[in-house]
Amino acid sequence: MHNNIKTQFPLLNNNKNLVYLDSAATSQKPYSVINALTEYYNNANANPHRGAYSISIESTRIYEEGREKIKRFLNLPSSHEVIFTKNNTEAINLVAYSYGLNFINEGDEVLIAITEHHSNLIPWQQVAKVKNAKLNYLYLNEDYEITDEEIKNKLTEKTKIVAIGQVSNVLGTVNPVDKVIKRAHELNAKVMIDGAQGLPHLKTDLSKLTPDFYSFSPHKIFAPMGIGVLCADKNLLEEMPPFMFGGDMVEYVYEQETTFDEVPHKFEAGTQHVEGVLGLTKALEFVEYLGYDYIEETDRELTEYAQERLNSLPYIKIIGPKEASKKIAVISFLVDGIHPHDIATILDSKGIAVRAGNHCAQPLLRFLGINSTIRISLSIYNEKADIDKLIDALEYARRLFGYGHE
Amino acid sequence: MHNNIKTQFPLLNNNKNLVYLDSAATSQKPYSVINALTEYYNNANANPHRGAYSISIESTRIYEEGREKIKRFLNLPSSHEVIFTKNNTEAINLVAYSYGLNFINEGDEVLIAITEHHSNLIPWQQVAKVKNAKLNYLYLNEDYEITDEEIKNKLTEKTKIVAIGQVSNVLGTVNPVDKVIKRAHELNAKVMIDGAQGLPHLKTDLSKLTPDFYSFSPHKIFAPMGIGVLCADKNLLEEMPPFMFGGDMVEYVYEQETTFDEVPHKFEAGTQHVEGVLGLTKALEFVEYLGYDYIEETDRELTEYAQERLNSLPYIKIIGPKEASKKIAVISFLVDGIHPHDIATILDSKGIAVRAGNHCAQPLLRFLGINSTIRISLSIYNEKADIDKLIDALEYARRLFGYGHE
Repeated sequence: MHNNIKTQFPLLNNNKNLVYLDSAATSQKPYSVINALTEYYNNANANPHRGAYSISIESTRIYEEGREKIKRFLNLPSSHEVIFTKNNTEAINLVAYSYGLNFINEGDEVLIAITEHHSNLIPWQQVAKVKNAKLNYLYLNEDYEITDEEIKNKLTEKTKIVAIGQVSNVLGTVNPVDKVIKRAHELNAKVMIDGAQGLPHLKTDLSKLTPDFYSFSPHKIFAPMGIGVLCADKNLLEEMPPFMFGGDMVEYVYEQETTFDEVPHKFEAGTQHVEGVLGLTKALEFVEYLGYDYIEETDRELTEYAQERLNSLPYIKIIGPKEASKKIAVISFLVDGIHPHDIATILDSKGIAVRAGNHCAQPLLRFLGINSTIRISLSIYNEKADIDKLIDALEYARRLFGYGHE
Repeated sequence: MHNNIKTQFPLLNNNKNLVYLDSAATSQKPYSVINALTEYYNNANANPHRGAYSISIESTRIYEEGREKIKRFLNLPSSHEVIFTKNNTEAINLVAYSYGLNFINEGDEVLIAITEHHSNLIPWQQVAKVKNAKLNYLYLNEDYEITDEEIKNKLTEKTKIVAIGQVSNVLGTVNPVDKVIKRAHELNAKVMIDGAQGLPHLKTDLSKLTPDFYSFSPHKIFAPMGIGVLCADKNLLEEMPPFMFGGDMVEYVYEQETTFDEVPHKFEAGTQHVEGVLGLTKALEFVEYLGYDYIEETDRELTEYAQERLNSLPYIKIIGPKEASKKIAVISFLVDGIHPHDIATILDSKGIAVRAGNHCAQPLLRFLGINSTIRISLSIYNEKADIDKLIDALEYARRLFGYGHE
């Protein structure tokens, strides 16, 4: 359907021998996104929200249209608002500071999934510590799933907030966020969904999902670095105090008192990253141009092919479900006899970029009884040939370590 | 010395009729900075600090070399470290949260200058409020100066921290930050210097100045948006808890406990804005190419010329010192009979970009007994012809409002 997708990504064009299998860390960027950065600085650069002159007005328009674009892209309910942050981590910290520290009290419970990336784990650990709340975990069964029973047992009337990722960045599994949200709302608990690994792969309709807080990581979905997004229930945002304080988020400032601007501006202190917002707008347009049907189909094909080829190697141990159908574009594995970091280094020597380590998910790896994995993560610019090269390089690594002639 | 500086700025090249007099809000960017963004995404884009493969290593190198560049540029003492934030506002909030909330106690005093931008004012107001500390102000005398006596009276043994800007964004006056730091350190108080309006114009040697905390606003000194810098005493940073929590700032993460990475990483949670750091590096190289001697001379010439021409118009009231020698590249004024916002709109119709309003410094304006000013702010790409066009447009505005035939 979309031929030559790869040619739309300059880094991949400029490095024909690079096999980039680390899109869960950050995606490559298409020309349309990169060009937008230059266009912004060439034609519209000004501080938004503050000037009565044309380029400042244009800058404000770009910034606020980016906000509207996100609302349409996610089908955000009108009850919710978009806040720009510097990255997904700040979005979650904003919720932990402004909601967590003010609405969670001693004896309350905070529930998070054991699959969480550190960014959706440590902020809640700190809130629980400061407020003397109890931090509970949703664990996985032997099939790497959070069961209905686990949700039922752990999500109780004491639970004030549940923090859970849409997709695990280590296992590639989809968490049952819809069930968690439904149960949480029955019990008046709030839910923070970390969409970092979800939105790049799954069409996400927030009017259907209705999380109280949803964040994602633009640089993982073709947008530039330095920008993050939080979508949140407006009523909650209005009750929450600001996170950071400074210009552009106030109404009246007196020597000893300040009144704050309305949502969303109350949460956007200081000069914002307009260039980043424009890049994000272009990135979401790129996703729309591809279409989620195409993305999901490509993910499925590539994931199935990679899983099948990896399963065929006897020295590979997949960490996570054996079935490709249970994971999205992310596969973690171990190579018998060779440390993940050594594998990553050998693969790099063959031009293959993968991640080795704990993937900022130490509690999950400890739960699984391991220290690190090799992780490949796929995107629409990958091809089956990339997987073939990976397999060849793994075979090479095994030979290099003397396992060649078994 | 540097002819045709303006041609190095694409936005000014593309808009020959634009007179940009709002560089204190944000500077325009030279080609070298804008091109760096594209180069980064075309050749090195990867998540830094986490990959064992070549583009991730290159990304880490770019990011860490940016840090080293800032250290050399500011002649940072080896006792200090550089932390990247999203903007100057986050840098100051980081200090307010991590230092202020943890080291300022009930009955302590926080001292800030009445000239402060909201970003170096509201965070301290909030710290004082939360900690039941007293918030005091350094006021100006009739010559718009913070006198030695004022410093002596207000900076006492109770003062725990002083927050003060290097240069006022409304008056263009240079605050006596060296005297404040000297006195504060005699009394064991810490000092936070907001260099947002200083560094773009004044060569700043932090080994001589030795503030405990120094921040600046990269996008005001030719760098892209979405990046900020905090320079801080390493011993203090080590004692301070992290501000935000997430990936890339930890050592060990357990379900209920986390140990943190060393300074500076402890304060840099989540994926950082590598592209922004590269742009900043190129921006500082651009400043070095110009040289501060050239910048300071250009500022002086332009400021003197603008002040002289404005002083010659009987209907203009300068807000701040009458002498150009007492201000740096920033002039605030009022036009008799016409509201600042109307002036800004009329000037925009003539292609002249100025700022009208309270300039995120409401307490200063209230202290001066006014609500708003028109502000022009100059940079090295401005020319005397820009000032002439401003003066013509002001004359036009007066005629438009019926003052023409007095």
